Amino acid sequence: MKAHKPVAVIMGSQSDWATMRHAAETLEALGIGHECLIVSAHRTPDRLYEFAKGAKVAGYQVVIAGAGGAAHLPGMTAALTSLPVFGVPVESKALSGQDSLLSIVQMPAGIPVGTLAIGRAGAVNAALLAAAVLGLNDPALADRVDAYRARQTGAVAERPANEA
Amino acid sequence: MKAHKPVAVIMGSQSDWATMRHAAETLEALGIGHECLIVSAHRTPDRLYEFAKGAKVAGYQVVIAGAGGAAHLPGMTAALTSLPVFGVPVESKALSGQDSLLSIVQMPAGIPVGTLAIGRAGAVNAALLAAAVLGLNDPALADRVDAYRARQTGAVAERPANEA
Amino acid sequence: MKAHKPVAVIMGSQSDWATMRHAAETLEALGIGHECLIVSAHRTPDRLYEFAKGAKVAGYQVVIAGAGGAAHLPGMTAALTSLPVFGVPVESKALSGQDSLLSIVQMPAGIPVGTLAIGRAGAVNAALLAAAVLGLNDPALADRVDAYRARQTGAVAERPANEA
Amino acid sequence: MKAHKPVAVIMGSQSDWATMRHAAETLEALGIGHECLIVSAHRTPDRLYEFAKGAKVAGYQVVIAGAGGAAHLPGMTAALTSLPVFGVPVESKALSGQDSLLSIVQMPAGIPVGTLAIGRAGAVNAALLAAAVLGLNDPALADRVDAYRARQTGAVAERPANEA
Amino acid sequence: MKAHKPVAVIMGSQSDWATMRHAAETLEALGIGHECLIVSAHRTPDRLYEFAKGAKVAGYQVVIAGAGGAAHLPGMTAALTSLPVFGVPVESKALSGQDSLLSIVQMPAGIPVGTLAIGRAGAVNAALLAAAVLGLNDPALADRVDAYRARQTGAVAERPANEA
Amino acid sequence: MKAHKPVAVIMGSQSDWATMRHAAETLEALGIGHECLIVSAHRTPDRLYEFAKGAKVAGYQVVIAGAGGAAHLPGMTAALTSLPVFGVPVESKALSGQDSLLSIVQMPAGIPVGTLAIGRAGAVNAALLAAAVLGLNDPALADRVDAYRARQTGAVAERPANEA
Amino acid sequence: MKAHKPVAVIMGSQSDWATMRHAAETLEALGIGHECLIVSAHRTPDRLYEFAKGAKVAGYQVVIAGAGGAAHLPGMTAALTSLPVFGVPVESKALSGQDSLLSIVQMPAGIPVGTLAIGRAGAVNAALLAAAVLGLNDPALADRVDAYRARQTGAVAERPANEA
Amino acid sequence: MKAHKPVAVIMGSQSDWATMRHAAETLEALGIGHECLIVSAHRTPDRLYEFAKGAKVAGYQVVIAGAGGAAHLPGMTAALTSLPVFGVPVESKALSGQDSLLSIVQMPAGIPVGTLAIGRAGAVNAALLAAAVLGLNDPALADRVDAYRARQTGAVAERPANEA
Repeated sequence: MKAHKPVAVIMGSQSDWATMRHAAETLEALGIGHECLIVSAHRTPDRLYEFAKGAKVAGYQVVIAGAGGAAHLPGMTAALTSLPVFGVPVESKALSGQDSLLSIVQMPAGIPVGTLAIGRAGAVNAALLAAAVLGLNDPALADRVDAYRARQTGAVAERPANEA
Repeated sequence: MKAHKPVAVIMGSQSDWATMRHAAETLEALGIGHECLIVSAHRTPDRLYEFAKGAKVAGYQVVIAGAGGAAHLPGMTAALTSLPVFGVPVESKALSGQDSLLSIVQMPAGIPVGTLAIGRAGAVNAALLAAAVLGLNDPALADRVDAYRARQTGAVAERPANEA
Repeated sequence: MKAHKPVAVIMGSQSDWATMRHAAETLEALGIGHECLIVSAHRTPDRLYEFAKGAKVAGYQVVIAGAGGAAHLPGMTAALTSLPVFGVPVESKALSGQDSLLSIVQMPAGIPVGTLAIGRAGAVNAALLAAAVLGLNDPALADRVDAYRARQTGAVAERPANEA
Repeated sequence: MKAHKPVAVIMGSQSDWATMRHAAETLEALGIGHECLIVSAHRTPDRLYEFAKGAKVAGYQVVIAGAGGAAHLPGMTAALTSLPVFGVPVESKALSGQDSLLSIVQMPAGIPVGTLAIGRAGAVNAALLAAAVLGLNDPALADRVDAYRARQTGAVAERPANEA
Repeated sequence: MKAHKPVAVIMGSQSDWATMRHAAETLEALGIGHECLIVSAHRTPDRLYEFAKGAKVAGYQVVIAGAGGAAHLPGMTAALTSLPVFGVPVESKALSGQDSLLSIVQMPAGIPVGTLAIGRAGAVNAALLAAAVLGLNDPALADRVDAYRARQTGAVAERPANEA
Repeated sequence: MKAHKPVAVIMGSQSDWATMRHAAETLEALGIGHECLIVSAHRTPDRLYEFAKGAKVAGYQVVIAGAGGAAHLPGMTAALTSLPVFGVPVESKALSGQDSLLSIVQMPAGIPVGTLAIGRAGAVNAALLAAAVLGLNDPALADRVDAYRARQTGAVAERPANEA
Repeated sequence: MKAHKPVAVIMGSQSDWATMRHAAETLEALGIGHECLIVSAHRTPDRLYEFAKGAKVAGYQVVIAGAGGAAHLPGMTAALTSLPVFGVPVESKALSGQDSLLSIVQMPAGIPVGTLAIGRAGAVNAALLAAAVLGLNDPALADRVDAYRARQTGAVAERPANEA
Repeated sequence: MKAHKPVAVIMGSQSDWATMRHAAETLEALGIGHECLIVSAHRTPDRLYEFAKGAKVAGYQVVIAGAGGAAHLPGMTAALTSLPVFGVPVESKALSGQDSLLSIVQMPAGIPVGTLAIGRAGAVNAALLAAAVLGLNDPALADRVDAYRARQTGAVAERPANEA
């Protein structure tokens, strides 16, 4: 039996929430159970080990991890669990998330992190990718994803509008 | 009933095969059925359209797409299917894959591509990520992935050896 | 017979209009007919295929395409039509359009996109480049372009003025 | 009456020829008349001035300009003629053409240069873009371009082949 | 006999004045005669040719040239005069002057531009470098520069002060 | 009582040894006891956890950690021990160590990693920095470091020599 | 006998204080004596030589040096003293501290600077790294560092909170 | 009376000579007296101090300084002398001279370094810039520079030649 909450949304600090809440809201919109947790690879390494090692047993199927700067959370989580991990580079102050992106995406062969775009777009898309994965074995969810995408397509206007 | 070959490994050109074969070999090692296809977003856009629109019906569950330079294949595939798409930035000549990476990972909110590292490491990891996804509902595969990772861990020597 | 509107100005989303309107305004100033359309490569791929495949028959002679981030619109349009396509990298939030620029300009051999500068300057110049192209067979337009450039030259003051 | 050679392929130095010859060969393959000239913005500024000011009268319709490093040739040519100018960033030694690319593409509003990819791909595509432009009023050429593209599409194999 | 105004401060547009005025003010502070002129390489190429070709005869001994984006003004000036040319990369909007810097500094062997830092610091330093050059044969100026530097050294506090 | 081996030199994989051996050789030259160990953050996270948590008790006083790509080893070690950790970015294939550098140096406030240069120079300097730290309370070592530096200074020739 | 103030916090100018004060405040919080001094490598090179040459005799054990742009202060200090030097790249205006970072971290083999992150995080961490170094021989300080880190760990909330 | 050798060519290490010899050879070709010296900012700071402080008295009029990586030699020389200093970024191994360039060019307001291109081109151009400066008061030299440039212009072929 699977947990009611198949997705864990973890982030390195409270300041990442402004970005990662978009993952949570997208999961919410798609009716996907999830937990949002702060797990700092650097300040709470024990919590990271405990969380990641226990994620599968806790019933999670996908982990979404967001972090900025020298962003080690997604990669270390992936090192500690065989669940699929999707990483969201949070926009950093000085380097605009270029450091976050490279720290997450350039994993060595052996431990994968599926990395999304820097910032809000990446957070939304991590949720959509989790939904695509979960939808492989949940036809109702797959239908909700298809409907979400259809609405998204339908919402694109034919012509640009001048802002007032 | 699912297809016997749940993973499609697509790439933009023959020259990408030197990188993408590492995805194929990793899938092979894990006993995951797959097809390797050349689908050029730019030179064969109709083939792309047809492939991506039909990928789900064809029984694929995950698409791995590798491309270099202005790499549009992963993102356009994701635009045309709701299957999970994992992108591999192929190392480009002048910019070493920095263009490939940004062209793949910086997708706008709405259409996700889970992006892996530039080059061989990314190709291997795309296969491992596909395995993690498929393993969510295939306990035997999940066991093979765990065994693969355990072997990988066991193969790390305690101390560095001087090369002769 | 050519259409009355030889230039299509397409863009990936409403948010690109703040940039692409400068292309439209420049075409307007030069008396060149044009249509402004939203065509999202990612959210409306069918619209993209339909538009690009039909652009020539619809009477367009030049396509100006603006997009940001993993900007696939110009390149995919060029893959689907043999009309000249000029790309405008829209300034992206985190990476300031570096991702947009590389995603547009680094096309592989075989499918060209003439790329302009990031942002407003690129939008203006895409219109001027379209005018130069159309002016090759439209002497009146060529004269208007020459006059535009002469005015531009004439408007450069001899000495810098202190702002009040 | 138009000149027999509608395209000028100019480059900053002999060392750029290894790249720019691909533009010439592509024009050749498409049956488009062209001249290849060395015009150094820095070492022969008078030649540049003379060439660019006289390009229209000389019967050229499109100028393809390749240069590397602080690449000023395409932009200065565009400043001195109202013909369409397409720029090819030649790969530079230390910075791999990143300097060439930015020096060519980041033109200010008012003087456009349609920029192609760094290196050989850009040289080929500059020729193809010139062909697309010239084909607007030369149906036979447009047919040759379409045939070129159809052959290109047809040459993409279905599956990757292992190199022996 | 030398002109009363040994330094020309040229810039590509009015918008560069906010940066280049710091060159003018520094020259002023050091009692060095100078002219400030707008010379756009792209919009006024004839003015550029005329200015640069005539700079020596006009009595200038040093040219300071500031420009942004695809900044061709310093390099083209250097191509047209054998006077020493110092270039100031003006901070550009999207790329923060990285394009300006590379466009100015990466000159090919044969035509030198002494390049200063991006923005205000570069403008001040271009003036100081011009002063150092002119001071080689103007002992009174050399003394003023030494005094300027001594004041500068003297103005560095021993300890940082908290801002109120 | 301190351990006989005050420095641990750890690295992510055997392939890092070609770089990190320069740290070991420099420590050797200075007569500083050290252990060289492979500790992969990603492939052997348990070994990392155990090593880093036990480093202080094991008698180590300084940890030198080298890794490449998404280099998490230095930062995670620093998260798990309060010993000083010095990080060496190993040059990566595609991005030349830019990813390694940012992944190591951009640590968030709270967990420091003293980062050295990319590659061999960084490995040598990590050893010298460790020596400087240990020398604070080991006058004999401090003398050896001073002698090392004096020899280094003395070895700089007055004039460059032409290579035969 | 050691000085009461074992740490010198030096910076290139008053404007660096907004960053470097975070180093001072962290040292303060840990009860570590320190002096804050302005030492400009460029404007006060004599002061730099005097300070760095005399730092050891003055009783300092660690030097923290912050600077921006072409940041030479940390490296030159390290060249003039054998004390451990930790460098803090101050965020620069145009290039966001990328210039500062490379100018500090890319030291040649022979003279080490332990480099921290750009900006405030780096300043805090330079202090923590100094504390780790000093704590090697000051058990009471080591205990205070451990308590600081424990508080830091304890302060990480389990879940993100919505900002009001 | 001026020294017979008006130009000092200094460099950080023997390994920079492969680049800096091009400065020496260009000065030679122009008949400009010069000394080539190794002055390492990091390994021989006293030599730097002595050289730079004494450069004016020694009769030098221009200093050309080449260095790589965290290249502090040009800027520190400029801090210690009021002679004009021209900097040559030597191509570094990992970062291709991007670090060298930024470390040299991004000087703060107050201490100027006229920076040339990365590598050989920059070394040649530093010599030419020195020649332009010295030529301001040496008509014979100015004539030699003009002749050098005329030969350079004359050596540019009209058309590219195919390499055999």
